[in-house]
Parts: sequence; structure tokens; C-alpha cells
Amino acid sequence: MSSDRASLIRDLSDEEARAALVLKWGDTEPGTIPAWVAEMDYEVAPVVREAVAAAVERGVLGYPPLDRAGGTVAEAYAGFAQRRYGATVDPAHVLLTADVTVGVRVALEVLSERAPMVLPVPAYDPQHGLGKVTGLEQWSLPVDLDGDDYALDLDELDRLLARGARTLLLTQPHNPAGHVHTRAELEGIRDVVTKHGARVVSDEIHAPLVLPGAEHVPYLSLEGTADHAVAVVSSSKAFGVPGLKCAQIVTGDDATRDRLVDTPLAHNDSWGSLGVVAAEAAYAHGDAWLDALVERLDQQRSLLRSLLAEHLPEARTWPLEATYLAWVDLRAYGHDDPAAPIRAGGVRVTPGAAYWPGLAGFVRLNIATSPERLTEIVRRMGAALD
Amino acid sequence: MSSDRASLIRDLSDEEARAALVLKWGDTEPGTIPAWVAEMDYEVAPVVREAVAAAVERGVLGYPPLDRAGGTVAEAYAGFAQRRYGATVDPAHVLLTADVTVGVRVALEVLSERAPMVLPVPAYDPQHGLGKVTGLEQWSLPVDLDGDDYALDLDELDRLLARGARTLLLTQPHNPAGHVHTRAELEGIRDVVTKHGARVVSDEIHAPLVLPGAEHVPYLSLEGTADHAVAVVSSSKAFGVPGLKCAQIVTGDDATRDRLVDTPLAHNDSWGSLGVVAAEAAYAHGDAWLDALVERLDQQRSLLRSLLAEHLPEARTWPLEATYLAWVDLRAYGHDDPAAPIRAGGVRVTPGAAYWPGLAGFVRLNIATSPERLTEIVRRMGAALD
Repeated sequence: MSSDRASLIRDLSDEEARAALVLKWGDTEPGTIPAWVAEMDYEVAPVVREAVAAAVERGVLGYPPLDRAGGTVAEAYAGFAQRRYGATVDPAHVLLTADVTVGVRVALEVLSERAPMVLPVPAYDPQHGLGKVTGLEQWSLPVDLDGDDYALDLDELDRLLARGARTLLLTQPHNPAGHVHTRAELEGIRDVVTKHGARVVSDEIHAPLVLPGAEHVPYLSLEGTADHAVAVVSSSKAFGVPGLKCAQIVTGDDATRDRLVDTPLAHNDSWGSLGVVAAEAAYAHGDAWLDALVERLDQQRSLLRSLLAEHLPEARTWPLEATYLAWVDLRAYGHDDPAAPIRAGGVRVTPGAAYWPGLAGFVRLNIATSPERLTEIVRRMGAALD
Repeated sequence: MSSDRASLIRDLSDEEARAALVLKWGDTEPGTIPAWVAEMDYEVAPVVREAVAAAVERGVLGYPPLDRAGGTVAEAYAGFAQRRYGATVDPAHVLLTADVTVGVRVALEVLSERAPMVLPVPAYDPQHGLGKVTGLEQWSLPVDLDGDDYALDLDELDRLLARGARTLLLTQPHNPAGHVHTRAELEGIRDVVTKHGARVVSDEIHAPLVLPGAEHVPYLSLEGTADHAVAVVSSSKAFGVPGLKCAQIVTGDDATRDRLVDTPLAHNDSWGSLGVVAAEAAYAHGDAWLDALVERLDQQRSLLRSLLAEHLPEARTWPLEATYLAWVDLRAYGHDDPAAPIRAGGVRVTPGAAYWPGLAGFVRLNIATSPERLTEIVRRMGAALD
């Protein structure tokens, strides 16, 4: 039964959350409910936590395996991708990296031409620094926030690539918009990209968190993408273990893989030994817990809809097709930065300007908490903006 | 009593070492004794391991604190530096980073002029890739391997800086040579560097492992270095926890610190949550265990000397003033790569060419193991080269 499954997800008490989530809760003033950074107020999946605890007990605190491609995590990821997305991945094409942002940085530095990259906005915060870090000029591709759907403007993408951009940083599922790109949308993107001989770096960290009603299509599962794209994936977001440092770069062919493997160790050697343990456990043995999590997030999504209708009837949101992060248009309430009065009212959300510099009137709201906390969060938000 | 103190160090059995050290032992064929990568066959200090286990129990697997400077690790490091080196460090000048190689990369990318860097050789392996990774041309400063001492050639350093190099990557204590730079040597380096207005990145990861008879002088403790140098340090080497991902960049003034803090998060945000826990425990509470470790390594150093005299009388070594890594000149035995016959003979050491491309006749030998294993290692090496 549905409610049995969701009960696998155990909510942390405030005290537990403050002890565990040293950034999300630890950096937020007591009395304020943290709903900002993308972490969940749930106990880590027992199968992952027990694997990590056992590894600590064995003393696995030293260097991790330094396989540059393949290995146990790659094998486990290939199984996960087959079961969850119906996608066939060759483990020999999967490389370890420290986290998704490092993986994207490495892909941009090693694979991309020294020419501008295209960043669709809104984009999550560390992505905005990637141009400066990699030395690539960064061109924004704004999404129409007054449209009904989140969709990339393919005509504008075409123009940017025609003007000389050579890489598209795709985030799918999207953070902060919660959008899952359909197969047709992805094929449209692919067609524009291949027309210009450009490259795609596809950040798919939220893929395990696609909610009922949508389906994750790995960009590399489309025909004609293997030679121009990599995906950067991780179990860290869905399983709540970003502090252990392990993500994966998925390549589509030997040539791309070999270019990444041939980069000096100093470029990409900072994954963690316990991150490897956690990733392997999550990918190989995490399905039941992940199913329960998706069900819980689906319930939170429904609850959010009714809470917004009650407390913030003028708020606009996009269909939350994936992730636990809602992109909320609060422009009707007349605050440039609604996150400020909301914080004063006892809830910490992230200002929209973190995702789109200068953007007024938006916030990102993290709903991965208990129904009780989410209820109180939206009630306080409504009171703060009243 | 001396022997009581060293007994705090517990040797791992072969079985324990194979379960814990997944790279050093796990990547070495059974029957061969691994004496290559810089990890120790000792149980991790209980005070560190217990802190990590307790953090896993609390669920500290999510994002670590993202303080860009200062914070609990910085405070603990300042106390450690005062007690161990008599050096005064302002915690507000200490930044977190993922590991020492990441810290050096970030320092080179953010602080150094776009001009060649000087790498003294021999240099440990990931350092050789830093030029390519950072886009800086890399100029070697070879050490005279036929001299009696390991010492940088200051005249040659002067010439390289006069020709346009702008950064010196200093490794002190030195890996693989085991040399501890004296205050006078460091002052000589400083004088040449300041003459040219150049910069120093000082990798001091082995500083806690200075052995009796030598003294670690932090480069930044010299007068006139604060504005041109950073040190990159970590508890991970001395305490055996490199898989948890936490190192520190120590700056000497606000301006340097601010330049590093102002770099985008994507440049340097990949330290681990448990690495933070381990570093704080090691720096704050690790002194007694570290004293015992240094005593044990001092004993291993003596044992090595007598074993070499017995089994490899033609081997030359440098005074092992710090680290547990001996740089061994085996040229007298007539093998281009002595590591190959040694591995065939049941011991894995690192070829000297890993530290100095093309160098023949040298190996680096890791002595951080039990007296019994070290005895067998050198016996096998002698038999292999006989």
C-alpha cells in the first residue's frame, strides 16, 4: 500500500536535523525553519548509512580507488540506469569525480572548445561561477517566466550557437524550476546542437527524483548524442550524502572517455572513499527506499499545492515534475526580495536572484521536510507577505 | 617511557590493512607487500576515528559548513600550529579546501600571475600535472642527486625568476626526499623570491611528521612572506584520513585571504563533511597519538638504516628528516627501473621516474608499516636486486 511505502521515510526531529544537517540547519538561526539549500530533513537511507558506518568501522578513511573509469560504482550506476531509466550504460564509459559541480567543471575544461558556453537561466547558484572558473565566456539563455511552461527557447539557442557559443550546460531535471525535459524537447535541443557541431554537458543529478507523471530521459540515451555530450550524475542528491564526495561523469564513447581519463590526476582526483561506498550502496541497493522517497515527495507536492492555495493564493508555481525544490513566483506580493520578509517571518528560503542575478519577486522553496513543517512554512510565508 | 608511547600505534594485520586501505593494499596483488602510495599500515588514531563514527551516527553526511575562512577547523589548526611549530596563525586567515592538491591548484589559479611556475624536482606525482591543469608553463628546478644534501639551487632559482617565472611551488618537508628545509634555507629562498616580486605556494602537508633532530619552520612564519605566500596544509597525511577530503589554505594577510574567498564557490567547494570532523578532532585532540607516531617512525627510520646496510649496502639515501617516505638511490644495482624487479620480488615501491620523469635507478619506499614487514620488504628488495 502506498502509505506503507512512504513510511520508509523517517522524518528527523528538529534536534536530529540540527545535529545532522550542519549547513541547512546549523547555519540557520534557531526558531527559523530552514527551507533553503537542497537537502532533505529525512534520515539517510539505512542501506546507505549502514554501508558507510561499516566502512568507517573497517577504517576505510584513506585513499579511495583511483580507477579513472569503470569500477564498482560504474557497475552499480549502470544497473541503476537500466532499472530506473531503461537506459543502457557501459560501465567502462563512467568516470568518478568529486561532485557534480567538479564534474561539470572538468568536462568544460577538458572537452569544450575555448569559446562561450550557454547557461539557461534560472540556473542553480554554483553554475553561475563556472564561466569565471573555467575561463569560458558565459552567455545566458533566459527562460520566459511569464510563459505557462518551462522550456528552452530553441531559436535563441540557435542564435547563440551561430554567434559562436560551443557548449550548452543543460540541467535536467531542472533546478530550480522542477521541470523534466520531455523526449521531444531533448530531441529539439539535440538537433540545434548538432546543427552547429556544439557540445552538451547535461547535469542530471536530480534524475532519481522524477515524480509520478514524468519520465527521465537521459540525454545520452538519444540517438546521435554519444560523441558530443556527457552527463554528470550522482546518488548524493537523492540519497542525501553530498558531504561524502562522489559523483560520476557518464560518457557516450571511448574517445570522450579517454580524453577525460588522460587529464592529469590533479585535475580530478578528489572523490572521497566513503562517497564511493555510499554511491555503490545507493545505486545497488537503494531502490526500495528511493521509491518511498519519491512517493513522499509526491505527497509533499500535493500538500504544497493546497497550502499555497490557502495561504498564498497569488503565488505562481511551475508544475513540479521532479526534485523537491519549488520555484515560486511571488511578484504579486510586491517585494523585490520576498525571501527577506519571509526570513523575518521565520522561514529561510533562497532568493530568486541567486538563480537569476537581478531577478525580483521569486524564491526557491525546499519541500523535503515533514508535512507538519511544510504546513508551518507556507503558513508563515503567507503571514510574512500579507 | 619511550616504548610505551610508541605502543599507542597499532599495526594493522594484513587482513585489516587490505580491508581498510583500498588503494594501497587493495590495488596490490596478494602476496606482494605494498610500500608505494603514502599511506600508513596503522590503525587511524582512535580520537579521530571515534569522532568520525559519531558523526556518521548523527547523520553528518550532507553539506559541510561552507565558511570560506575561519570556522572550527581554522581555530583547531591555529592551536595545533602554536603548539607544534610555535607559530602564530590567525584563524581568520585559514580557508578550507578539499585536499592539498586542490588547494595548490586554487592558489595557482587565483593568486599567481599567468607566467611560468617553478617546480623543484624530484616532486611528488600529482604536482607534475599542475602546470597543464592550471595553464601555467612549468619549469623544473632539478636538485643535485649526487650532492650530499637535498638543497634548492638558489642561483638557478634566481635565473628562472629573472627569465620570467613568477611562482615557486615549495614542498616542505619534502616528498619524496624527506628533507626538512632549515630556517636559513627558507630565508635564502625568501630573499630570492622577494628580489623578483614572485610568489610561493608552500605545500606543508608533511609538517606534522618532522622527526626528532629537525624542526618544521612554516614558510609563513618568516618575516616578509605574508604578502607573497600561502601554505597548504592538512591533517590527512599524518592522521591517515585523505579519503575524507579536507585540507586548509593558510594565508598571511587579509588581501590574499580575500582574493581566495572571492573566487566562485564552484572553484573550491568540495571539502567533505566528515573531513571537517576529522580535521577538527586531529588538530584539537591528536597530539598524544601524533607524538607516538613520530616516535614509531623514528624507530622505523633507524631500522631502515640497518636493514639497508645489511641487504642493500650500495643503496644511497638522504637523511630522512621527515615523512615516512625514503628516497632511495639504487643506481649502483644497474636497473633503469628497480621498482620492476622489486615488484617481481614481492614488494611494490614507486619508481623514481614518477617524481622525476625519465630518472633511472631510484625508488620511493614507504616505511610506515610494522617492523616485521619493513624487515621483509628490505630483505626482498635486496634479493630482487642481487
